[in-house]
Amino acid sequence: MRAAVIGLGLIGGSLLRALAGAGHTVLGYDADPSTRAMARTAAAKVRTGTRWRVTGSVPDAVEGADLVALAVPLPAIPGVLDELARTGHPGLVTDVTSVKVPVRAMVAERIGRLGLLAGYIGGHPMAGRETSGFDASDPTLFQGCAWVLCLEPRTDMRDWLALAHLLTGLGARVVPATAEEHDRAVAAVSHVPHLVAAALVRLAADDPLALTLAAGSFRDGTRVAASQPGLTAAICGGNAGTAGTALDALLDSLGTARELLAEPDPIAALQAWLAPAARVRSAWPAAASEPVDLPPEPEVLLRLGRAGGWLVSVAPDLRSVSAARPI
Amino acid sequence: MRAAVIGLGLIGGSLLRALAGAGHTVLGYDADPSTRAMARTAAAKVRTGTRWRVTGSVPDAVEGADLVALAVPLPAIPGVLDELARTGHPGLVTDVTSVKVPVRAMVAERIGRLGLLAGYIGGHPMAGRETSGFDASDPTLFQGCAWVLCLEPRTDMRDWLALAHLLTGLGARVVPATAEEHDRAVAAVSHVPHLVAAALVRLAADDPLALTLAAGSFRDGTRVAASQPGLTAAICGGNAGTAGTALDALLDSLGTARELLAEPDPIAALQAWLAPAARVRSAWPAAASEPVDLPPEPEVLLRLGRAGGWLVSVAPDLRSVSAARPI
Repeated sequence: MRAAVIGLGLIGGSLLRALAGAGHTVLGYDADPSTRAMARTAAAKVRTGTRWRVTGSVPDAVEGADLVALAVPLPAIPGVLDELARTGHPGLVTDVTSVKVPVRAMVAERIGRLGLLAGYIGGHPMAGRETSGFDASDPTLFQGCAWVLCLEPRTDMRDWLALAHLLTGLGARVVPATAEEHDRAVAAVSHVPHLVAAALVRLAADDPLALTLAAGSFRDGTRVAASQPGLTAAICGGNAGTAGTALDALLDSLGTARELLAEPDPIAALQAWLAPAARVRSAWPAAASEPVDLPPEPEVLLRLGRAGGWLVSVAPDLRSVSAARPI
Repeated sequence: MRAAVIGLGLIGGSLLRALAGAGHTVLGYDADPSTRAMARTAAAKVRTGTRWRVTGSVPDAVEGADLVALAVPLPAIPGVLDELARTGHPGLVTDVTSVKVPVRAMVAERIGRLGLLAGYIGGHPMAGRETSGFDASDPTLFQGCAWVLCLEPRTDMRDWLALAHLLTGLGARVVPATAEEHDRAVAAVSHVPHLVAAALVRLAADDPLALTLAAGSFRDGTRVAASQPGLTAAICGGNAGTAGTALDALLDSLGTARELLAEPDPIAALQAWLAPAARVRSAWPAAASEPVDLPPEPEVLLRLGRAGGWLVSVAPDLRSVSAARPI
């Protein structure tokens, strides 16, 4: 297959390398000239046989592509969608941004206006790192990584399965979910944890003694607070409504903990509150079941995703999928 | 020096091994027979020249000891203090529990009642791990580790400096602080992070899709939620008032983040809120200044601690200390 990757940061660069490594012809583009230069230098160094190349424009990258993957930050998506629509690209389009309802809305607006982009399937590989940029990219980044592919009422199942086939081929665990389900889940396990990490840093920031005493629980609990604030703000703020609802639930929960600290026997009260979380966290990440074959029907796949399951592989004829679940 | 270590879990076992490795004679005791057996088996395996031995009772361990270190959990402290007081041990006593005001109160009550334990100096090595028990103990656990030694108006400076000399000899960074200062600092950098980690797990616990999508920010932000709930409850609940005040401050801060998510431009608002935390976290842990000599005066040392500084070494005659600060 011939693929175009627009945006060559950590995720886009890794996708470019992984697709080329899997034998696909890949053209990459990045709006930043220095990133393009870095990627070209890397392309010149790879062994013969892996086929990727960096172009000087979006139209050059997408010409003749079976799949276009948008790996730019959320604020850059509308501009790239407009450029892409102008090329008249008729095929599959996916993205890797960390919120799915807003991107779906951006695409839907353009489908209505331009009659294009109908082959859009939202995606999100859960492969963030503290590092960023093309020089941090890694062709093995997606092996074992959960990669949400949005499955909506209007999704063409053959397109969806073709994309799932491609991504499971890179070692990803493809998780079927609606855009809403995705945004709720990542609010809980990514957006709120980022806000909490920053709040924990703020709590200690003005006390040099506290920062000297800080050890493992502070180090790990605040690690992602060192991320680029602009990136974290775009991710959380791009999902503001859903992240707000999740943060409300966390505030409720911490409010309970606050009340337990004021009880006559706070130790016993806290122990009962902490125990279920310790059980869940000790069992995470879950082991995977043996793969089973499933019919590639939307409701079957969405049920699988809601149960925490994922696609291990898709048959080349797209007539069946192999799926695993957490056990 | 001859030292007794009461309680041979992760911290007590590591202290036993570290003191023996530094050439001291060490007797250890644990209330749990299987822990004593494990420690005896380990003692039989160590090379000739390191002197540590496991006794069958507290009195056997403390007889003739220059220093008694209590490495039992907070709820066990009163019982061990009573046993220790009955032995008539006249010398230095320290502990390693994670709250200092409550332990100081337990000791003060017994000093008043029994006229003993006057040589108590509260301590706390910031060396927690997810693992626990004697089999996780490690003689190098304290190298580079911040170890608070409480410096109170009634503290005998020669006792304090002798203990600081011993602990800097194990590679620890000895941090002078009052019990109150210690408890406030650890509430912010340890107790609240433990409660937050549990709340983050609870937020995702009932959603299998969320647990499958959870990646780095969830993994690190919730790591300590897998700790034994009884241990975390004893640590946080033992410092309930101070931890409650710190949790209130965190709730305020997260309440602000909640409001920012509801602003017309949540991305810009969040970025401004996240930026100071990113700066502080990126600069943590700070590098250490070159050591400078300081006079061993209580106010000088407490000022050092409040500025985030620590003792690197204590002169053998206890007349000066060498100290470093974060830069």
